[in-house]
Amino acid sequence: MKKIGILGGGQLGRMLLQAAANYPVETFVMENDTGCPAAHLCHHFIKGNITSFDDVYNFGQGLDAITIEIESVNVEALEKLENEGVKIYPSPAALKIIKDKILQKQFYKNNEIPTSSFVITQNKTELEQHINFLPAAHKIGMGGYDGRGVELLKTKEDIERGFDAPAVLEKLVTVKKEIAVIIAVNDKGENAIYPPVDMVFDPRLNLLEYQVSPAALPEKVLWKVEAIALKVVKSLKSAGIFAVELFVDADDNVLVNETAPRVHNSGHHTIEANYSSQFDMLWRIMLNYPLGNTEHILPAAIVNLLGAEGFTGPAYYEGLEEVLKTDNVFVHIYGKKETKPGRKMGHITILSNEKQELIHQANRIKHTLKVISL
Amino acid sequence: MKKIGILGGGQLGRMLLQAAANYPVETFVMENDTGCPAAHLCHHFIKGNITSFDDVYNFGQGLDAITIEIESVNVEALEKLENEGVKIYPSPAALKIIKDKILQKQFYKNNEIPTSSFVITQNKTELEQHINFLPAAHKIGMGGYDGRGVELLKTKEDIERGFDAPAVLEKLVTVKKEIAVIIAVNDKGENAIYPPVDMVFDPRLNLLEYQVSPAALPEKVLWKVEAIALKVVKSLKSAGIFAVELFVDADDNVLVNETAPRVHNSGHHTIEANYSSQFDMLWRIMLNYPLGNTEHILPAAIVNLLGAEGFTGPAYYEGLEEVLKTDNVFVHIYGKKETKPGRKMGHITILSNEKQELIHQANRIKHTLKVISL
Repeated sequence: MKKIGILGGGQLGRMLLQAAANYPVETFVMENDTGCPAAHLCHHFIKGNITSFDDVYNFGQGLDAITIEIESVNVEALEKLENEGVKIYPSPAALKIIKDKILQKQFYKNNEIPTSSFVITQNKTELEQHINFLPAAHKIGMGGYDGRGVELLKTKEDIERGFDAPAVLEKLVTVKKEIAVIIAVNDKGENAIYPPVDMVFDPRLNLLEYQVSPAALPEKVLWKVEAIALKVVKSLKSAGIFAVELFVDADDNVLVNETAPRVHNSGHHTIEANYSSQFDMLWRIMLNYPLGNTEHILPAAIVNLLGAEGFTGPAYYEGLEEVLKTDNVFVHIYGKKETKPGRKMGHITILSNEKQELIHQANRIKHTLKVISL
Repeated sequence: MKKIGILGGGQLGRMLLQAAANYPVETFVMENDTGCPAAHLCHHFIKGNITSFDDVYNFGQGLDAITIEIESVNVEALEKLENEGVKIYPSPAALKIIKDKILQKQFYKNNEIPTSSFVITQNKTELEQHINFLPAAHKIGMGGYDGRGVELLKTKEDIERGFDAPAVLEKLVTVKKEIAVIIAVNDKGENAIYPPVDMVFDPRLNLLEYQVSPAALPEKVLWKVEAIALKVVKSLKSAGIFAVELFVDADDNVLVNETAPRVHNSGHHTIEANYSSQFDMLWRIMLNYPLGNTEHILPAAIVNLLGAEGFTGPAYYEGLEEVLKTDNVFVHIYGKKETKPGRKMGHITILSNEKQELIHQANRIKHTLKVISL
């Protein structure tokens, strides 16, 4: 059996390991928190720091392949392991580009991939010189994750919230739709593309409300979305799973927002809704099996289950019983012991041929299910 | 989080634990083999003998609930644990009836559940007095499993293959169809029934060829099948998952063959084919959640992957790549290190709205995929 390691032990690792148990593979996880969601689902759990060169390098020696759950891993150790023959998904070269928002933006520009216009700012003083560029999003180069490291700067007064560190200032786009596309690439360079997903945001709170797959797009926009997402992935020249997030603007222009070189929240519905899930697909890639079928079995929606505002402590899932009574929903609780505001605690997948039913259930679940602490 | 234990660590435990990771639950497994398929997928693995009173009793203390993967567990320890407040699925009383083929047959008779006629034989001398009852199946009372402990006695000469131990001699039925039905029962006594499954046998080898869900049955036969399976489960007066295997004879009479008080091979397709799988359903029962939806998303077939004749040793899956190229199949390899003839090494699920496609792919997979040793 091949020995394959995952750096990071959160919910993505957990779902990867659920899928791994369909195949002959010996699994390893490294993470600092011994009680993390993935710790008990692997053959070998190694407590360690994924940002430490030594920890990652020691973890990887003797493994056939490594994948990541989060971008903030020690890339230098992965490069050394790659040189010594360990397969890394994604390649350290691709990971280096993506984990630095500045390099990522430059990569799009260099490869003529449409993206919003931007300037790079090394510090706050430089930022102040670009007041004319507002409204814009200021994104820190390194270390941002899940909304952290991004500030929306609309007026001159907002500048003080900007980062005094290398960052990208991205021109704000009038977004009609946000789309995510998951693409799988194997070692031979063959790829498989999942149907694009509509990411529906709450206009007031700018929070992701729910996702619907497949996205409702005019055919020409769909083609653009698929072609651009594929171009991103091909330009990265790496095997693995990639999630490309795109904006469709008022004129139906398609712009790349950002790319994740790993399994991604926008692909969780594929567990039940598609023949080969994104997690199944990554094992196929790492075990040198044929790519799976990305077609959907049924259309789906996902609602993320976030820790409710005002509650920190042992998690309690209020309304879970009510949701579990619904005929066409699938509950995924990530098993995190503690909730805190905004923490990803689980997700719910809804399957239906009827789009109205997907949206109706997504809204119902959002109002029924809350993660609180008693 | 509730603490729930599984006695036995084979593929049923493995698939139970894959499903457990969707819910907040702390999992425990006891099994003698530390390299068994489920060992690495639980929070706590305890090496122990599931037939030993002390081992089972010690395992169960402090747990909220226990379920089983196999009938051959120490029931006395489970009874003591039940008296001390641990929930047991199935109840020890139901398990006692089922694990002894003699008690099981008498249970059907006492509850007026149709089953083939039978006589009980305590030893070979008693068996010899029933030559007129042949052709019949001789089933050992305790300890039979997966075809072991059953002898087909057609003529006087076959008698010597009979068991010199308490056993049941069951009149042979002319079987038109073999059907399996999975039923879920919760603590309140509510139940949910899965669509019956057609078990298709090779007429020459008497080996299960493949299973198709839902079974093709005339409506009146379907009603009988469902009513009789429900009567079995209600008469057992236990919560849990039950698999009732039935014969349909030449005259469309429906007879119970046997019952398993646990998740079962005939329900493996429910992982992909039904809204709530049998594994998901058992967690719902044990965690006191509402019962799930047993409806199918798509019709399905299953092919079991057995160790090929003539090969014993480290498992190699010949033809696996070919099968993984098929658009509508799902592979489940159980991760057993060693193959031996007839050993259950995995299963393949096929989804399709077209019955012909299900049967075509089932046959193709049977001829493509082989578990050998290099």
